[in-house]
Amino acid sequence: MKQLRIGMIGYKFMGKAHSNAYKTLPMFFPQALKPEMSVLCGRNAEYLQEAATRLGWQDTETDWKELVTRDDIDLVDINAPSNVHKEIALAAAKAGKHLFCEKPLALSLADSREMLQAAEEAGVLHMVGFNYRFSPAVRLAKKLVESGRLGKIHHFRAWFLQDWILDPEFPLVWRLQKEIAGSGSLGDLGAHLIDLAHFLVGDVEEVIGMSETFIKERPLAAEMTGLTAKGSGGGPRGEVTVDDATLFMARFANGAIGSFEATRFAAGHRSTNSFEINGSLGSIRFDFERMNELEVFLTSDDEDIQGFRRVLATDPVHEYAAAWWPTGHTIGFEHTFIHEVLELSNAIEEGRQPEPNFRDGVKCQAVLEAVERSIEERRWVSLSEM
Amino acid sequence: MKQLRIGMIGYKFMGKAHSNAYKTLPMFFPQALKPEMSVLCGRNAEYLQEAATRLGWQDTETDWKELVTRDDIDLVDINAPSNVHKEIALAAAKAGKHLFCEKPLALSLADSREMLQAAEEAGVLHMVGFNYRFSPAVRLAKKLVESGRLGKIHHFRAWFLQDWILDPEFPLVWRLQKEIAGSGSLGDLGAHLIDLAHFLVGDVEEVIGMSETFIKERPLAAEMTGLTAKGSGGGPRGEVTVDDATLFMARFANGAIGSFEATRFAAGHRSTNSFEINGSLGSIRFDFERMNELEVFLTSDDEDIQGFRRVLATDPVHEYAAAWWPTGHTIGFEHTFIHEVLELSNAIEEGRQPEPNFRDGVKCQAVLEAVERSIEERRWVSLSEM
Amino acid sequence: MKQLRIGMIGYKFMGKAHSNAYKTLPMFFPQALKPEMSVLCGRNAEYLQEAATRLGWQDTETDWKELVTRDDIDLVDINAPSNVHKEIALAAAKAGKHLFCEKPLALSLADSREMLQAAEEAGVLHMVGFNYRFSPAVRLAKKLVESGRLGKIHHFRAWFLQDWILDPEFPLVWRLQKEIAGSGSLGDLGAHLIDLAHFLVGDVEEVIGMSETFIKERPLAAEMTGLTAKGSGGGPRGEVTVDDATLFMARFANGAIGSFEATRFAAGHRSTNSFEINGSLGSIRFDFERMNELEVFLTSDDEDIQGFRRVLATDPVHEYAAAWWPTGHTIGFEHTFIHEVLELSNAIEEGRQPEPNFRDGVKCQAVLEAVERSIEERRWVSLSEM
Amino acid sequence: MKQLRIGMIGYKFMGKAHSNAYKTLPMFFPQALKPEMSVLCGRNAEYLQEAATRLGWQDTETDWKELVTRDDIDLVDINAPSNVHKEIALAAAKAGKHLFCEKPLALSLADSREMLQAAEEAGVLHMVGFNYRFSPAVRLAKKLVESGRLGKIHHFRAWFLQDWILDPEFPLVWRLQKEIAGSGSLGDLGAHLIDLAHFLVGDVEEVIGMSETFIKERPLAAEMTGLTAKGSGGGPRGEVTVDDATLFMARFANGAIGSFEATRFAAGHRSTNSFEINGSLGSIRFDFERMNELEVFLTSDDEDIQGFRRVLATDPVHEYAAAWWPTGHTIGFEHTFIHEVLELSNAIEEGRQPEPNFRDGVKCQAVLEAVERSIEERRWVSLSEM
Repeated sequence: MKQLRIGMIGYKFMGKAHSNAYKTLPMFFPQALKPEMSVLCGRNAEYLQEAATRLGWQDTETDWKELVTRDDIDLVDINAPSNVHKEIALAAAKAGKHLFCEKPLALSLADSREMLQAAEEAGVLHMVGFNYRFSPAVRLAKKLVESGRLGKIHHFRAWFLQDWILDPEFPLVWRLQKEIAGSGSLGDLGAHLIDLAHFLVGDVEEVIGMSETFIKERPLAAEMTGLTAKGSGGGPRGEVTVDDATLFMARFANGAIGSFEATRFAAGHRSTNSFEINGSLGSIRFDFERMNELEVFLTSDDEDIQGFRRVLATDPVHEYAAAWWPTGHTIGFEHTFIHEVLELSNAIEEGRQPEPNFRDGVKCQAVLEAVERSIEERRWVSLSEM
Repeated sequence: MKQLRIGMIGYKFMGKAHSNAYKTLPMFFPQALKPEMSVLCGRNAEYLQEAATRLGWQDTETDWKELVTRDDIDLVDINAPSNVHKEIALAAAKAGKHLFCEKPLALSLADSREMLQAAEEAGVLHMVGFNYRFSPAVRLAKKLVESGRLGKIHHFRAWFLQDWILDPEFPLVWRLQKEIAGSGSLGDLGAHLIDLAHFLVGDVEEVIGMSETFIKERPLAAEMTGLTAKGSGGGPRGEVTVDDATLFMARFANGAIGSFEATRFAAGHRSTNSFEINGSLGSIRFDFERMNELEVFLTSDDEDIQGFRRVLATDPVHEYAAAWWPTGHTIGFEHTFIHEVLELSNAIEEGRQPEPNFRDGVKCQAVLEAVERSIEERRWVSLSEM
Repeated sequence: MKQLRIGMIGYKFMGKAHSNAYKTLPMFFPQALKPEMSVLCGRNAEYLQEAATRLGWQDTETDWKELVTRDDIDLVDINAPSNVHKEIALAAAKAGKHLFCEKPLALSLADSREMLQAAEEAGVLHMVGFNYRFSPAVRLAKKLVESGRLGKIHHFRAWFLQDWILDPEFPLVWRLQKEIAGSGSLGDLGAHLIDLAHFLVGDVEEVIGMSETFIKERPLAAEMTGLTAKGSGGGPRGEVTVDDATLFMARFANGAIGSFEATRFAAGHRSTNSFEINGSLGSIRFDFERMNELEVFLTSDDEDIQGFRRVLATDPVHEYAAAWWPTGHTIGFEHTFIHEVLELSNAIEEGRQPEPNFRDGVKCQAVLEAVERSIEERRWVSLSEM
Repeated sequence: MKQLRIGMIGYKFMGKAHSNAYKTLPMFFPQALKPEMSVLCGRNAEYLQEAATRLGWQDTETDWKELVTRDDIDLVDINAPSNVHKEIALAAAKAGKHLFCEKPLALSLADSREMLQAAEEAGVLHMVGFNYRFSPAVRLAKKLVESGRLGKIHHFRAWFLQDWILDPEFPLVWRLQKEIAGSGSLGDLGAHLIDLAHFLVGDVEEVIGMSETFIKERPLAAEMTGLTAKGSGGGPRGEVTVDDATLFMARFANGAIGSFEATRFAAGHRSTNSFEINGSLGSIRFDFERMNELEVFLTSDDEDIQGFRRVLATDPVHEYAAAWWPTGHTIGFEHTFIHEVLELSNAIEEGRQPEPNFRDGVKCQAVLEAVERSIEERRWVSLSEM
């Protein structure tokens, strides 16, 4: 009989989202294999214990190396900072554990390939945390594209706009340090857009990008939680080593063309994660700040009433919606994780690879790295180079 | 051969809108009978001459009694304050002139009936200025209702929200004086909603209303233009004798139920003239601040993409649109008057009554007066009483 | 030491929402008194057991009379159909249990008063389930009103529009039967609007309403879940004994005027629960389909950039938001219940009455009943009559 | 005494817009120097005469060479197809006439520079038809940027999306032929975005673009009007020699970064001409389909009510608005031309260069050509190369 005993590393923003997903899944998707919240892992024993109690984990472990070899877990959920993903994943795969890793998979394409290879060689199942795929409205987008109702895709444009570091006095948190985060807006926000492009449009053939770091020095961070932090006042400053904003253009294998923008400097945009697709038969638009909605245009509508419709993806016909509330009653950010964990749970029960998995993580990383190379070398970079 | 030589009384807000309509019509609707801007009439000779030159009228007349009997005009356009509509219309009808009268027709139902009777007895054509019927998006609404695409109508709700007198120091302009304006928000704004209800849903059977004058005294007005005015500072104050806001509910002859709201105290609403209709097969929504748009919902849409579409009524298929600009290029407030004048011009050429005409003006007045009675007597009032 | 051991009656739509709230509270509000999901109660033992397992209840009880006297529970959560609220509440109060009752409190004002009296005499704490008060955006609305930033309130308009019974073949579920539901759109949807009016504007002085049952007979329901149901095909039909739609107008004690509309026949509106408030210094708008947003207009803004702002109430400054996700990451319908349970939990810990409590339930019921009387007697009804 | 006797070449889409502007200007801006609609010029005498009568021109001329040397005109308005702009402008400048030329100035940067030089050497005034600068909402945008209320500009993103040639059977009109139109979406739509970028953000330093022609062959056009046309059915086809869509990224001299997209293949977008600017203190958004609105975000707003406001630029404080209608009453596409002609008229009266003038036309052309070169050579192109 299948089991899903989880050992999770990290308990901040993503750790909370995952914990909530594991805990909530059985209530709304009772038919799914139930995740057991077995062991929570973190370096600081005191904080760890508080988190484990609050989030509902049965046991704790302060050394991830111990965790990944424990007999009583089936899957390692890695939501530690990006710079340690690889080492953990390799060890866990070697120990025969299934893997669920937050995005981006690793700090480099080479590392992410190594992770995929390790997982494949170990024969374990692997998933990567591109949670936005799991919005009901995004599932509807996928359905419309796949069924051909939008026709041939001409345009993809996507932008992930935030403004949380607009203030020059916002401190130098780890997400602004290349050696830990790997990348700034591109890896953090752009990665989601790239995965959505892969999911909805297909493979990217070539890219060219540009980036900017608007604020080059910031106060060192005194402490932080989630995405917020307090600066050290008039204290020492450090260099921002990642991009504040990155733009790139892309050509897709199917002939579509795309534009992408990721920034943390778009005043007024708390978290506008948005895309639009234009096809020969119709168009769709999505904005995560209104995540329950998908705007849909079809050229086949009567000619006097053509226009983008605002579809609230909360009807029983919409994926996941029937498990929640009556039509018109919306869900939120955290539900994408619950649906993600549903896919993880189903895949493990069925013994198949979840979607998206490390292959998708590697594909995303290849585009990220191609964009970075295109920025450094100021030229178009083909994915075939990568 | 038909002619349309116009004598117009009044040259402020509505006079400017009508003048522009007469002047612009031939350029965009060259097939229509061309209105001649013959004589402009007003009491102050100096202001009148300036206005006539600016607006493009060939001649002037300071006494409307002279105007209405002149041989060289075919139609009298009455956009003087509401309290003089009747006297002018009666004299003009007697002189055999066609009539084009701004809304509301008169200060009372009795007066408006007298005007209709006079026009009918004189055998002249008559039009009333419910310009909002002439938005392309409202024409589309009408088409959707009439063709049955919305099914049986259940609900009509309409609100005309402004905020131009929100400031208690805004002066006591004529629109706030019952003896001149006849009514406040109800007659000014509510009248438009009632006409739209008649146009789109049908006859009203009974009503009950409530009203409020939030600011009961205001500074006397020193001077005014259009809807704006300058107060007299610390000077004398006068009583506001009209309603600042009026709400009413209605039952329609066809079984639909309706709610109406007219107010000049809705902070942030410069001129939100909006309605929504819910039928058994679909719904529509309109807001004049986005007058080129109609939102349309149809229950017959595929169940996974149901939602209100934003239709931009600028496609060639939309009434009037082909005469203007390429699709997607919008028009504005003044265009409703140009289309209104097109209907006037066509009707006169064809020797038929324009739509809307004094019958519609009387019908509107009957509802207005029923609402007023219902407010005074605090009871439902049937239109059959009126 | 305070405890919160819950016995809950009912496990359908509301039961699921409450269960999820109890379960999730400790993870996001760890400082709150933790609700224990002790006993779930329902009549059908088989369904009950399945629900208890799925929703995470420790024990079950098929007879609510047993439940309310159990020693091991501190609070009875009543989300059974409205017609049994009273009997349960009286018994539970008598047994010294705290009460948490879904809205509407009872089928009549008299019953709801009896419930309040019973609770007060028993000295227990009591809460009523007006969950919409607990949207962060509604809390922000409250804050803006209370702090005087909107000035004196002139207008309140609210509409709760749904379309789930638009199809004449939708079956005769219990919500369409007066003897069980007490009321139709008015009691189900209008009650929420009335509570929001009380919360945000204050006491209602007098009302007048109208209502309609558009579809008077429907197929008998074969089975149902949540708000959805399957009809009995060509089988027998029964009479719809509640209102499909109800409108009413109101005068508030503070001089504001209001319009209310509740309907289940607004095609395209899955669950549009919306209000707007216009004050002398500003306005606000809310729509539950976009529950994370509040639109705010202030007359004090610079005159060249006045307009309604779309505030996403997910910033740390917004009530509850800091407990959830980083700014810009939205929450959903179910979170209103989690916040509601937070208030319940805090109130019990602090030994004070929760807000809203049975007094609010009674006040709401008084307005509902005044509206019903005004419809029957076709006249304005003062709340002082009730 | 200054005169403004106009000779205009072309009477289709732009000719109609200009004629209406000349005719309407005096009514709404009576203080401005009045344009005389003296001579209309076109090749086909029959069509020309009809157009002159309809549009209100006093005289006609079938040979533009005759027109530009007539004594009785002061200004030549060139709205013929782009490939003849230069020859006409050179001859008109030589004849000492002021110039008003539709965009794009010419088919090449060299040509446009020649035009500017000719105008400067002749000492005539010159204007280029970037009409979107003249929307009141765009003027407000300019004011907000210039006054520093948005702070330092970080991002500019702009997209001009249309869908009028989405249908592969739409015929090969002149706008799809490089030898006449010079460019496709880039020159037609992108040129407007570039001018807005210059107007609102400043000089562009370097660019890189990509483009695509999705439909490479189309039926030959049988006849056409404005942007619409009828195809030749099953007849012969010709090659589309311009771009259907062009994207590019840009770096501005002031450190801002920008993304641009122009396409005629965005299903559902009739004419979405939109931009967003993000600065260190705020952001603005504009969409020409809702041209009366500007969305404005300011970081200085109270922290609990931050959000984009929808400003309706129809208040007296907004440029041009006082000349039109009361607040809340919107204007349309054609009004941008009336305001443009106002600037032309004022500049001529004051003997100064209008804004925008041929210098702006040349600057725009330089960016267009840099983008084209960057596409051909697949590399970043600096404006200093041009």
